[in-house]
Amino acid sequence: MKILVSNDDGISSVGISKLVKELKKIGEVIVVAPSTEQSAVGHSITMKFPLRVKEYFINGNLFGYAVDGTPADCIKMGIKNILHEKPDIVISGINNGSNAAINVIYSGTVSAAREAAIMDVPSIAISVASHTPENYEYAAKLVSKLAILVCKNKLRTGTLLNVNVPDIPENEIKGVLLTKQGLTKWEDCYEERLDPYGVKYYWLTGQMDYQDTDIDRDVIAINNGYASITPIHFDLTDYAMFEKMKNWDFDSLRDS
Amino acid sequence: MKILVSNDDGISSVGISKLVKELKKIGEVIVVAPSTEQSAVGHSITMKFPLRVKEYFINGNLFGYAVDGTPADCIKMGIKNILHEKPDIVISGINNGSNAAINVIYSGTVSAAREAAIMDVPSIAISVASHTPENYEYAAKLVSKLAILVCKNKLRTGTLLNVNVPDIPENEIKGVLLTKQGLTKWEDCYEERLDPYGVKYYWLTGQMDYQDTDIDRDVIAINNGYASITPIHFDLTDYAMFEKMKNWDFDSLRDS
Repeated sequence: MKILVSNDDGISSVGISKLVKELKKIGEVIVVAPSTEQSAVGHSITMKFPLRVKEYFINGNLFGYAVDGTPADCIKMGIKNILHEKPDIVISGINNGSNAAINVIYSGTVSAAREAAIMDVPSIAISVASHTPENYEYAAKLVSKLAILVCKNKLRTGTLLNVNVPDIPENEIKGVLLTKQGLTKWEDCYEERLDPYGVKYYWLTGQMDYQDTDIDRDVIAINNGYASITPIHFDLTDYAMFEKMKNWDFDSLRDS
Repeated sequence: MKILVSNDDGISSVGISKLVKELKKIGEVIVVAPSTEQSAVGHSITMKFPLRVKEYFINGNLFGYAVDGTPADCIKMGIKNILHEKPDIVISGINNGSNAAINVIYSGTVSAAREAAIMDVPSIAISVASHTPENYEYAAKLVSKLAILVCKNKLRTGTLLNVNVPDIPENEIKGVLLTKQGLTKWEDCYEERLDPYGVKYYWLTGQMDYQDTDIDRDVIAINNGYASITPIHFDLTDYAMFEKMKNWDFDSLRDS
């Protein structure tokens, strides 16, 4: 199995090295990851500037390729200019921090997997739900087994799997749940501060505003000690609203 | 009607000024937009750096507030720290260039509207399908009428309308179609070049790989002279795949 690995925490992060170590047991691993941290970049791509690619060594051994762009850039570049062919699967992570509910929208980790899905390559995003994870091992093993399951069962074009694992020891994990993206979001606020010159600046902060209760929503599953697997797609059409809107008075949009 | 306006082309762009001029006929307009161009930033938000807000004047009159962040930042900042309340509607645009099919994923214009939808504020993204539009007026008038229709009919929480207009004179527009997001994507390639020091760099380029044929897909509607209106939602769950995956052998993910 040929596996393309990326992430958003950068090529030097602990999470990606733990992931690569485990994946090497099941296939050939090629790493193409951002040279610097790219958290919360969403599905950003680089068009106004050129990209550069550098070989990245650990202890004198080639670990992978560092791209001075976003996670989505890394997948495009990895498939088009480094592999020159589609891998069997793309795996993005292991991310420091949950990518569940609304965080899916902001996530660079998920965007790398989504870029693969757009390019018709099966893909998985994997995150541990803590900003300072202590338990990468279970996540690495889980995604490795899931990669085999994905290659056997196939995903439909455009779908990726978004996996989140609680940051608890493996023997405390209650199991794996098939989940939906939660609707839980951030209640944002901006902390107002003054710089040394007396000029105001604002720093984004906030807390989770839980909108979910059911165990089949990713955030709730994770909070209850389960690993969550959510299939997501790049077709954002709201089909329910589409049907409803057929009754709207579109004639009112014409010039009177 | 209180209308919060943003975009991704930046506060000094022609598109936003044409939009504001038209919207002032139907309500009170507050502009909070990026201080610089933010195309293809996707749903990026700024967390690692603080943001600054500056009043932006045109001919000595306050036009709006410039934020040195992304379109999604502008919406959060606009609602939380400038308006201090939810507006009746958020409108993002008028974007130079189509935001249909796969471009929805990369779009900063759409992300501003989506951030509003997440914050439970009705919203519309509006784009003209040309990188050098000559026909902003119809787009401005259409979105103005649509804003009234949205306030009357209501969108469900989390849904926004993504509107695209062909860059042709108003009398050549064939009409308005309710559409779905197309599945058309880019066939990417990277142009390899050498910098003045002989070092390789790569520039993203590519062409549209049309996957759609039906007139109710946004790209096809626009190419055929129609304005397209697509409802999109921030819940990315692939419900069809979710049902299918219930038959997967999740037991194989357990430790053996």
